[in-house]
Amino acid sequence: MLGILGGMGPAATVDFMNKIMSETVARDDQEHVPMIVASLPQIPDRSAAILGNGPDPLPHMIRGIILLETAGATMIAIPCNTAHYWYPEMERFARVRLLNLVHACSEELHRTYPKGARLGVLATRATYHTELYRRGLVDFEVEYPAEYDQELLMVGIASTKSGEISKARSCIGRVAFRLLDKGCDAVVMACTEIPLALSKPSSRDPQRFFDPTAALARKCVHLWNARDGAVGQ
Amino acid sequence: MLGILGGMGPAATVDFMNKIMSETVARDDQEHVPMIVASLPQIPDRSAAILGNGPDPLPHMIRGIILLETAGATMIAIPCNTAHYWYPEMERFARVRLLNLVHACSEELHRTYPKGARLGVLATRATYHTELYRRGLVDFEVEYPAEYDQELLMVGIASTKSGEISKARSCIGRVAFRLLDKGCDAVVMACTEIPLALSKPSSRDPQRFFDPTAALARKCVHLWNARDGAVGQ
Repeated sequence: MLGILGGMGPAATVDFMNKIMSETVARDDQEHVPMIVASLPQIPDRSAAILGNGPDPLPHMIRGIILLETAGATMIAIPCNTAHYWYPEMERFARVRLLNLVHACSEELHRTYPKGARLGVLATRATYHTELYRRGLVDFEVEYPAEYDQELLMVGIASTKSGEISKARSCIGRVAFRLLDKGCDAVVMACTEIPLALSKPSSRDPQRFFDPTAALARKCVHLWNARDGAVGQ
Repeated sequence: MLGILGGMGPAATVDFMNKIMSETVARDDQEHVPMIVASLPQIPDRSAAILGNGPDPLPHMIRGIILLETAGATMIAIPCNTAHYWYPEMERFARVRLLNLVHACSEELHRTYPKGARLGVLATRATYHTELYRRGLVDFEVEYPAEYDQELLMVGIASTKSGEISKARSCIGRVAFRLLDKGCDAVVMACTEIPLALSKPSSRDPQRFFDPTAALARKCVHLWNARDGAVGQ
Protein backbone atom coordinates (compact mmCIF):
# COMPACT_ATOMS: atom_id res chain seq x y z
CA MET A 1 0.00 0.00 0.00
CA LEU A 2 1.33 3.46 -0.93
CA GLY A 3 1.57 5.83 2.02
CA ILE A 4 1.23 9.57 1.45
CA LEU A 5 2.32 12.03 4.10
CA GLY A 6 0.23 15.01 3.09
CA GLY A 7 -1.60 18.11 4.14
CA MET A 8 1.39 20.29 3.21
CA GLY A 9 -0.84 21.74 1.78
CA PRO A 10 -4.06 19.71 1.62
CA ALA A 11 -4.91 20.76 -1.97
CA ALA A 12 -1.47 19.61 -3.15
CA THR A 13 -2.13 16.22 -1.52
CA VAL A 14 -5.40 15.80 -3.41
CA ASP A 15 -3.66 16.93 -6.60
CA PHE A 16 -0.97 14.30 -6.02
CA MET A 17 -3.63 11.57 -5.54
CA ASN A 18 -5.22 12.69 -8.82
CA LYS A 19 -1.84 12.41 -10.53
CA ILE A 20 -1.35 8.88 -9.17
CA MET A 21 -4.75 7.94 -10.62
CA SER A 22 -4.18 9.55 -13.98
CA GLU A 23 -0.81 7.78 -14.28
CA THR A 24 -2.51 4.43 -13.58
CA VAL A 25 -3.98 2.31 -16.36
CA ALA A 26 -7.16 0.87 -14.82
CA ARG A 27 -10.37 -0.57 -16.20
CA ASP A 28 -12.12 -0.70 -12.83
CA ASP A 29 -11.67 0.31 -9.19
CA GLN A 30 -9.72 -2.82 -8.35
CA GLU A 31 -6.81 -1.97 -10.67
CA HIS A 32 -6.04 1.31 -8.92
CA VAL A 33 -3.15 1.81 -6.45
CA PRO A 34 -4.26 1.32 -2.82
CA MET A 35 -3.24 4.26 -0.66
CA ILE A 36 -3.20 5.34 2.93
CA VAL A 37 -3.08 9.10 3.15
CA ALA A 38 -2.39 11.17 6.25
CA SER A 39 -3.42 14.70 5.37
CA LEU A 40 -2.07 16.59 8.38
CA PRO A 41 -2.38 20.31 7.68
CA GLN A 42 -1.54 21.13 11.31
CA ILE A 43 2.11 20.17 10.68
CA PRO A 44 3.88 23.47 11.41
CA ASP A 45 4.83 25.60 8.41
CA ARG A 46 8.03 24.25 6.84
CA SER A 47 9.15 27.56 5.39
CA ALA A 48 8.84 29.42 8.68
CA ALA A 49 10.88 26.75 10.48
CA ILE A 50 13.69 26.79 7.90
CA LEU A 51 13.85 30.57 7.97
CA GLY A 52 14.12 30.45 11.76
CA ASN A 53 10.79 31.92 12.81
CA GLY A 54 8.49 28.97 13.43
CA PRO A 55 8.21 25.70 15.35
CA ASP A 56 9.97 22.56 14.17
CA PRO A 57 7.74 20.38 11.93
CA LEU A 58 10.12 17.38 11.96
CA PRO A 59 8.64 15.51 14.98
CA HIS A 60 5.15 15.89 13.43
CA MET A 61 6.34 14.53 10.10
CA ILE A 62 8.11 11.59 11.74
CA ARG A 63 4.97 10.75 13.71
CA GLY A 64 3.05 10.90 10.41
CA ILE A 65 5.48 8.46 8.80
CA ILE A 66 5.20 6.04 11.71
CA LEU A 67 1.39 6.35 11.61
CA LEU A 68 1.44 5.44 7.90
CA GLU A 69 3.74 2.47 8.50
CA THR A 70 1.54 1.24 11.35
CA ALA A 71 -1.50 1.49 9.05
CA GLY A 72 0.28 -0.73 6.50
CA ALA A 73 2.14 1.60 4.12
CA THR A 74 4.94 -0.26 2.33
CA MET A 75 6.45 2.86 0.72
CA ILE A 76 5.86 6.52 1.47
CA ALA A 77 5.76 9.65 -0.69
CA ILE A 78 5.63 13.24 0.58
CA PRO A 79 4.09 15.72 -1.86
CA CYS A 80 5.79 18.80 -0.39
CA ASN A 81 9.09 20.10 -1.72
CA THR A 82 10.07 22.19 1.28
CA ALA A 83 9.55 19.21 3.61
CA HIS A 84 12.38 17.43 1.76
CA TYR A 85 14.85 19.61 3.62
CA TRP A 86 14.35 17.07 6.42
CA TYR A 87 14.51 14.04 4.09
CA PRO A 88 17.72 12.58 5.60
CA GLU A 89 16.31 12.80 9.13
CA MET A 90 12.95 11.34 8.09
CA GLU A 91 14.70 8.51 6.26
CA ARG A 92 16.63 7.71 9.44
CA PHE A 93 13.31 6.95 11.19
CA ALA A 94 11.45 5.26 8.32
CA ARG A 95 11.29 1.47 8.20
CA VAL A 96 9.87 1.45 4.66
CA ARG A 97 11.14 3.11 1.50
CA LEU A 98 10.76 6.87 1.64
CA LEU A 99 10.56 8.22 -1.91
CA ASN A 100 12.41 11.44 -2.64
CA LEU A 101 10.57 14.07 -4.67
CA VAL A 102 13.74 15.91 -5.72
CA HIS A 103 15.39 12.67 -6.89
CA ALA A 104 12.28 11.63 -8.87
CA CYS A 105 12.31 15.08 -10.50
CA SER A 106 16.02 14.95 -11.22
CA GLU A 107 15.79 11.48 -12.81
CA GLU A 108 13.14 12.63 -15.27
CA LEU A 109 14.86 15.91 -16.06
CA HIS A 110 18.01 13.97 -16.94
CA ARG A 111 15.99 11.90 -19.39
CA THR A 112 14.40 15.02 -20.92
CA TYR A 113 17.07 17.73 -21.04
CA PRO A 114 20.78 17.65 -21.98
CA LYS A 115 23.37 18.37 -19.32
CA GLY A 116 23.96 22.06 -18.97
CA ALA A 117 20.37 22.99 -19.88
CA ARG A 118 19.15 26.16 -18.15
CA LEU A 119 16.36 25.40 -15.73
CA GLY A 120 14.44 28.08 -13.85
CA VAL A 121 13.33 26.90 -10.44
CA LEU A 122 10.12 28.24 -8.86
CA ALA A 123 10.04 27.41 -5.16
CA THR A 124 9.42 28.79 -1.72
CA ARG A 125 12.03 31.11 -0.27
CA ALA A 126 12.84 28.36 2.21
CA THR A 127 13.45 25.80 -0.56
CA TYR A 128 15.93 28.20 -2.20
CA HIS A 129 17.55 28.73 1.15
CA THR A 130 18.11 24.98 1.58
CA GLU A 131 19.64 24.69 -1.94
CA LEU A 132 17.62 21.43 -2.32
CA TYR A 133 17.17 21.91 -6.06
CA ARG A 134 20.61 23.36 -6.79
CA ARG A 135 22.10 20.24 -5.19
CA GLY A 136 19.54 17.92 -6.80
CA LEU A 137 20.12 19.30 -10.29
CA VAL A 138 23.94 19.65 -10.32
CA ASP A 139 24.18 18.72 -14.01
CA PHE A 140 22.06 21.70 -15.03
CA GLU A 141 22.42 25.44 -14.89
CA VAL A 142 19.89 26.36 -12.23
CA GLU A 143 18.38 29.82 -12.22
CA TYR A 144 16.33 31.41 -9.44
CA PRO A 145 13.92 34.34 -9.81
CA ALA A 146 15.21 37.82 -8.98
CA GLU A 147 14.54 39.05 -5.45
CA TYR A 148 11.44 41.15 -6.33
CA ASP A 149 10.02 38.19 -8.27
CA GLN A 150 10.63 35.94 -5.28
CA GLU A 151 8.35 38.19 -3.28
CA LEU A 152 5.65 37.91 -5.96
CA LEU A 153 6.05 34.14 -6.03
CA MET A 154 5.52 33.85 -2.26
CA VAL A 155 2.32 35.92 -2.61
CA GLY A 156 1.22 33.51 -5.36
CA ILE A 157 1.92 30.42 -3.24
CA ALA A 158 0.04 31.87 -0.25
CA SER A 159 -2.86 32.76 -2.55
CA THR A 160 -3.10 29.14 -3.71
CA LYS A 161 -3.24 27.99 -0.08
CA SER A 162 -6.09 30.38 0.67
CA GLY A 163 -7.98 29.42 -2.49
CA GLU A 164 -7.45 32.65 -4.49
CA ILE A 165 -6.45 30.82 -7.65
CA SER A 166 -6.69 33.64 -10.19
CA LYS A 167 -4.48 35.90 -8.06
CA ALA A 168 -2.06 32.99 -7.62
CA ARG A 169 -1.98 32.31 -11.37
CA SER A 170 -1.23 35.91 -12.18
CA CYS A 171 1.61 36.23 -9.61
CA ILE A 172 3.27 32.90 -10.37
CA GLY A 173 2.76 33.16 -14.14
CA ARG A 174 4.58 36.49 -14.31
CA VAL A 175 7.60 35.08 -12.48
CA ALA A 176 7.64 31.91 -14.62
CA PHE A 177 7.48 33.73 -17.94
CA ARG A 178 10.21 36.15 -16.89
CA LEU A 179 12.51 33.13 -16.32
CA LEU A 180 11.61 31.72 -19.76
CA ASP A 181 12.10 35.14 -21.38
CA LYS A 182 15.54 35.34 -19.77
CA GLY A 183 16.51 32.19 -21.71
CA CYS A 184 15.63 29.27 -19.44
CA ASP A 185 14.85 26.08 -21.36
CA ALA A 186 12.15 25.14 -18.86
CA VAL A 187 10.82 26.05 -15.46
CA VAL A 188 10.61 23.53 -12.64
CA MET A 189 7.48 24.03 -10.50
CA ALA A 190 9.29 23.11 -7.29
CA CYS A 191 6.49 23.87 -4.88
CA THR A 192 3.42 21.63 -4.89
CA GLU A 193 1.08 24.64 -4.83
CA ILE A 194 2.43 26.01 -8.13
CA PRO A 195 0.96 23.46 -10.57
CA LEU A 196 -2.41 23.99 -8.86
CA ALA A 197 -2.30 27.62 -9.96
CA LEU A 198 -0.58 27.15 -13.34
CA SER A 199 -2.92 24.50 -14.68
CA LYS A 200 -2.30 23.60 -18.29
CA PRO A 201 -5.05 25.58 -20.02
CA SER A 202 -3.61 28.78 -18.60
CA SER A 203 0.03 28.31 -19.48
CA ARG A 204 1.34 29.68 -22.77
CA ASP A 205 3.91 26.97 -23.22
CA PRO A 206 2.88 23.88 -21.19
CA GLN A 207 5.68 21.57 -22.35
CA ARG A 208 8.25 23.94 -20.80
CA PHE A 209 6.69 23.63 -17.34
CA PHE A 210 8.06 20.64 -15.46
CA ASP A 211 6.09 19.30 -12.50
CA PRO A 212 8.16 17.37 -9.91
CA THR A 213 4.96 16.12 -8.21
CA ALA A 214 3.90 14.44 -11.47
CA ALA A 215 7.37 12.84 -11.68
CA LEU A 216 6.94 11.53 -8.12
CA ALA A 217 3.46 10.18 -9.03
CA ARG A 218 4.89 8.35 -12.07
CA LYS A 219 7.64 6.92 -9.87
CA CYS A 220 5.05 5.66 -7.33
CA VAL A 221 2.92 4.01 -10.01
CA HIS A 222 6.01 2.48 -11.63
CA LEU A 223 7.19 1.04 -8.30
CA TRP A 224 3.70 -0.21 -7.53
CA ASN A 225 3.38 -1.97 -10.89
CA ALA A 226 6.86 -3.50 -10.51
CA ARG A 227 6.23 -4.37 -6.87
CA ASP A 228 7.78 -7.30 -5.13
CA GLY A 229 7.37 -8.60 -1.59
CA ALA A 230 8.72 -5.38 -0.11
CA VAL A 231 6.03 -3.00 -1.35
CA GLY A 232 3.42 -5.37 -2.68
CA GLN A 233 0.89 -5.85 0.08
CA MET B 1 -9.05 13.56 12.82
CA LEU B 2 -11.60 12.74 10.11
CA GLY B 3 -11.28 9.20 8.77
CA ILE B 4 -12.33 8.45 5.20
CA LEU B 5 -12.91 4.89 4.07
CA GLY B 6 -12.42 5.32 0.35
CA GLY B 7 -11.32 3.80 -2.90
CA MET B 8 -14.94 2.95 -3.81
CA GLY B 9 -14.01 4.35 -6.33
CA PRO B 10 -10.74 6.18 -5.89
CA ALA B 11 -11.77 9.22 -7.96
CA ALA B 12 -14.87 9.66 -5.81
CA THR B 13 -12.63 9.65 -2.72
CA VAL B 14 -10.47 12.44 -4.12
CA ASP B 15 -13.63 14.33 -5.13
CA PHE B 16 -14.91 13.98 -1.56
CA MET B 17 -11.62 15.33 -0.13
CA ASN B 18 -11.93 18.29 -2.52
CA LYS B 19 -15.46 18.89 -1.26
CA ILE B 20 -14.26 18.84 2.36
CA MET B 21 -11.66 21.45 1.45
CA SER B 22 -14.01 23.68 -0.48
CA GLU B 23 -16.51 23.59 2.41
CA THR B 24 -13.76 24.71 4.83
CA VAL B 25 -13.02 28.36 5.48
CA ALA B 26 -9.22 28.46 5.79
CA ARG B 27 -6.60 31.16 5.42
CA ASP B 28 -3.66 28.75 5.56
CA ASP B 29 -2.84 25.03 5.68
CA GLN B 30 -3.24 24.85 9.44
CA GLU B 31 -6.95 25.74 9.35
CA HIS B 32 -7.89 22.75 7.17
CA VAL B 33 -9.50 19.55 8.49
CA PRO B 34 -6.91 16.84 9.27
CA MET B 35 -7.78 13.56 7.59
CA ILE B 36 -6.66 9.99 7.46
CA VAL B 37 -7.78 8.40 4.22
CA ALA B 38 -7.71 4.71 3.38
CA SER B 39 -8.24 4.51 -0.38
CA LEU B 40 -8.72 0.76 -0.80
CA PRO B 41 -9.85 0.11 -4.38
CA GLN B 42 -9.31 -3.64 -3.93
CA ILE B 43 -12.43 -3.82 -1.73
CA PRO B 44 -14.66 -6.18 -3.75
CA ASP B 45 -17.32 -4.60 -5.93
CA ARG B 46 -20.32 -3.66 -3.77
CA SER B 47 -22.88 -3.91 -6.57
CA ALA B 48 -21.82 -7.41 -7.58
CA ALA B 49 -22.03 -8.63 -3.99
CA ILE B 50 -25.53 -7.20 -3.45
CA LEU B 51 -26.76 -8.68 -6.71
CA GLY B 52 -25.38 -12.05 -5.62
CA ASN B 53 -22.51 -12.51 -8.05
CA GLY B 54 -19.41 -11.32 -6.29
CA PRO B 55 -17.39 -11.76 -3.08
CA ASP B 56 -18.47 -10.08 0.16
CA PRO B 57 -16.83 -6.65 0.67
CA LEU B 58 -17.97 -6.30 4.30
CA PRO B 59 -14.91 -7.86 6.04
CA HIS B 60 -12.65 -5.60 3.92
CA MET B 61 -14.66 -2.52 4.86
CA ILE B 62 -14.63 -3.42 8.56
CA ARG B 63 -10.84 -3.92 8.43
CA GLY B 64 -10.61 -0.49 6.78
CA ILE B 65 -12.66 1.09 9.57
CA ILE B 66 -10.49 -0.51 12.25
CA LEU B 67 -7.35 0.60 10.39
CA LEU B 68 -8.63 4.19 10.38
CA GLU B 69 -9.50 4.06 14.08
CA THR B 70 -6.05 2.63 14.91
CA ALA B 71 -4.47 5.47 12.92
CA GLY B 72 -6.37 8.01 15.02
CA ALA B 73 -9.65 8.71 13.22
CA THR B 74 -12.26 10.14 15.61
CA MET B 75 -15.14 9.98 13.11
CA ILE B 76 -15.42 8.16 9.79
CA ALA B 77 -17.14 8.97 6.51
CA ILE B 78 -17.58 6.56 3.57
CA PRO B 79 -17.99 8.28 0.21
CA CYS B 80 -19.77 5.36 -1.50
CA ASN B 81 -23.55 5.09 -1.58
CA THR B 82 -23.77 1.38 -2.35
CA ALA B 83 -21.49 0.55 0.60
CA HIS B 84 -24.16 2.00 2.91
CA TYR B 85 -26.16 -1.17 2.42
CA TRP B 86 -23.81 -2.57 5.09
CA TYR B 87 -24.03 0.54 7.31
CA PRO B 88 -25.74 -1.22 10.27
CA GLU B 89 -23.13 -3.99 10.29
CA MET B 90 -20.23 -1.54 9.95
CA GLU B 91 -21.66 0.57 12.76
CA ARG B 92 -21.75 -2.50 14.98
CA PHE B 93 -17.94 -2.79 14.67
CA ALA B 94 -17.03 0.90 14.75
CA ARG B 95 -15.82 2.43 18.01
CA VAL B 96 -16.05 5.98 16.65
CA ARG B 97 -18.96 7.80 15.01
CA LEU B 98 -19.67 6.43 11.54
CA LEU B 99 -21.37 9.12 9.48
CA ASN B 100 -24.22 8.05 7.22
CA LEU B 101 -24.24 9.46 3.69
CA VAL B 102 -27.94 8.77 3.13
CA HIS B 103 -28.88 10.49 6.42
CA ALA B 104 -26.72 13.53 5.60
CA CYS B 105 -28.42 13.71 2.20
CA SER B 106 -31.90 13.30 3.68
CA GLU B 107 -31.31 16.03 6.29
CA GLU B 108 -30.37 18.56 3.62
CA LEU B 109 -33.16 17.57 1.26
CA HIS B 110 -35.66 18.11 4.07
CA ARG B 111 -34.30 21.63 4.52
CA THR B 112 -34.49 22.33 0.78
CA TYR B 113 -37.65 20.68 -0.56
CA PRO B 114 -41.20 20.43 0.83
CA LYS B 115 -42.58 17.05 1.88
CA GLY B 116 -44.02 15.22 -1.09
CA ALA B 117 -41.59 16.76 -3.59
CA ARG B 118 -40.75 14.43 -6.47
CA LEU B 119 -37.11 13.40 -6.42
CA GLY B 120 -35.49 11.34 -9.15
CA VAL B 121 -32.77 9.07 -7.80
CA LEU B 122 -29.77 8.15 -9.94
CA ALA B 123 -27.93 5.21 -8.41
CA THR B 124 -26.39 1.84 -9.13
CA ARG B 125 -28.74 -1.04 -9.78
CA ALA B 126 -27.59 -2.47 -6.45
CA THR B 127 -28.50 0.70 -4.56
CA TYR B 128 -32.02 0.56 -6.02
CA HIS B 129 -32.21 -3.10 -5.09
CA THR B 130 -31.40 -2.27 -1.44
CA GLU B 131 -34.07 0.50 -1.35
CA LEU B 132 -31.53 2.60 0.61
CA TYR B 133 -32.81 5.88 -0.81
CA ARG B 134 -36.51 4.97 -0.84
CA ARG B 135 -36.21 4.25 2.87
CA GLY B 136 -33.97 7.27 3.50
CA LEU B 137 -36.31 9.69 1.72
CA VAL B 138 -39.71 8.47 2.98
CA ASP B 139 -41.16 12.00 3.08
CA PHE B 140 -40.64 12.44 -0.66
CA GLU B 141 -42.01 10.86 -3.76
CA VAL B 142 -39.01 8.93 -5.03
CA GLU B 143 -38.75 8.10 -8.72
CA TYR B 144 -36.31 5.67 -10.34
CA PRO B 145 -35.27 5.64 -14.00
CA ALA B 146 -37.05 3.26 -16.37
CA GLU B 147 -35.37 -0.11 -16.93
CA TYR B 148 -33.69 0.82 -20.26
CA ASP B 149 -32.37 4.03 -18.66
CA GLN B 150 -31.01 2.04 -15.74
CA GLU B 151 -28.88 0.12 -18.22
CA LEU B 152 -27.57 3.38 -19.68
CA LEU B 153 -26.83 4.71 -16.19
CA MET B 154 -24.74 1.64 -15.31
CA VAL B 155 -22.72 2.15 -18.52
CA GLY B 156 -22.20 5.77 -17.48
CA ILE B 157 -21.03 4.82 -13.97
CA ALA B 158 -18.60 2.21 -15.34
CA SER B 159 -17.30 4.79 -17.85
CA THR B 160 -16.51 7.19 -14.99
CA LYS B 161 -14.56 4.45 -13.21
CA SER B 162 -12.49 3.76 -16.34
CA GLY B 163 -11.89 7.48 -16.96
CA GLU B 164 -14.12 7.90 -20.07
CA ILE B 165 -15.75 11.05 -18.75
CA SER B 166 -17.41 12.34 -21.91
CA LYS B 167 -19.10 9.00 -22.53
CA ALA B 168 -20.16 8.94 -18.87
CA ARG B 169 -21.56 12.47 -19.09
CA SER B 170 -23.61 11.65 -22.14
CA CYS B 171 -25.10 8.43 -20.68
CA ILE B 172 -25.86 9.82 -17.22
CA GLY B 173 -27.04 13.20 -18.50
CA ARG B 174 -29.68 11.60 -20.73
CA VAL B 175 -31.11 9.61 -17.84
CA ALA B 176 -31.08 12.63 -15.52
CA PHE B 177 -32.85 14.96 -17.92
CA ARG B 178 -35.49 12.33 -18.70
CA LEU B 179 -36.34 12.25 -14.98
CA LEU B 180 -36.56 16.06 -14.87
CA ASP B 181 -38.66 16.11 -18.05
CA LYS B 182 -41.01 13.58 -16.45
CA GLY B 183 -41.72 16.15 -13.72
CA CYS B 184 -39.17 15.48 -10.98
CA ASP B 185 -38.34 18.56 -8.92
CA ALA B 186 -34.71 17.50 -8.63
CA VAL B 187 -32.44 14.55 -9.21
CA VAL B 188 -30.35 13.06 -6.44
CA MET B 189 -26.93 11.91 -7.67
CA ALA B 190 -26.90 8.87 -5.39
CA CYS B 191 -23.71 7.29 -6.69
CA THR B 192 -20.39 9.03 -5.98
CA GLU B 193 -19.26 8.57 -9.59
CA ILE B 194 -22.18 10.58 -10.98
CA PRO B 195 -21.17 14.11 -9.87
CA LEU B 196 -17.72 13.40 -11.35
CA ALA B 197 -19.34 13.02 -14.76
CA LEU B 198 -22.06 15.67 -14.39
CA SER B 199 -19.81 18.50 -13.31
CA LYS B 200 -21.52 21.86 -13.08
CA PRO B 201 -20.48 23.47 -16.37
CA SER B 202 -22.11 20.63 -18.27
CA SER B 203 -25.46 20.50 -16.55
CA ARG B 204 -28.33 22.52 -17.97
CA ASP B 205 -29.92 23.10 -14.61
CA PRO B 206 -27.29 22.75 -11.86
CA GLN B 207 -29.50 23.78 -8.92
CA ARG B 208 -31.79 20.80 -9.59
CA PHE B 209 -28.92 18.31 -9.19
CA PHE B 210 -28.46 17.33 -5.57
CA ASP B 211 -25.14 15.80 -4.53
CA PRO B 212 -25.30 13.60 -1.39
CA THR B 213 -21.47 13.50 -1.22
CA ALA B 214 -21.40 17.29 -0.91
CA ALA B 215 -23.99 17.04 1.89
CA LEU B 216 -21.76 14.50 3.67
CA ALA B 217 -18.76 16.81 3.23
CA ARG B 218 -20.69 19.73 4.75
CA LYS B 219 -21.72 17.49 7.65
CA CYS B 220 -18.08 16.49 8.26
CA VAL B 221 -16.85 20.09 8.22
CA HIS B 222 -19.72 21.16 10.50
CA LEU B 223 -18.94 18.38 13.00
CA TRP B 224 -15.24 19.19 12.84
CA ASN B 225 -15.84 22.88 13.50
CA ALA B 226 -18.21 22.08 16.38
CA ARG B 227 -15.91 19.38 17.70
CA ASP B 228 -15.65 18.45 21.30
CA GLY B 229 -13.46 15.93 23.06
CA ALA B 230 -14.99 13.03 21.13
CA VAL B 231 -13.87 14.05 17.65
CA GLY B 232 -11.48 16.86 18.37
CA GLN B 233 -8.03 15.32 18.38
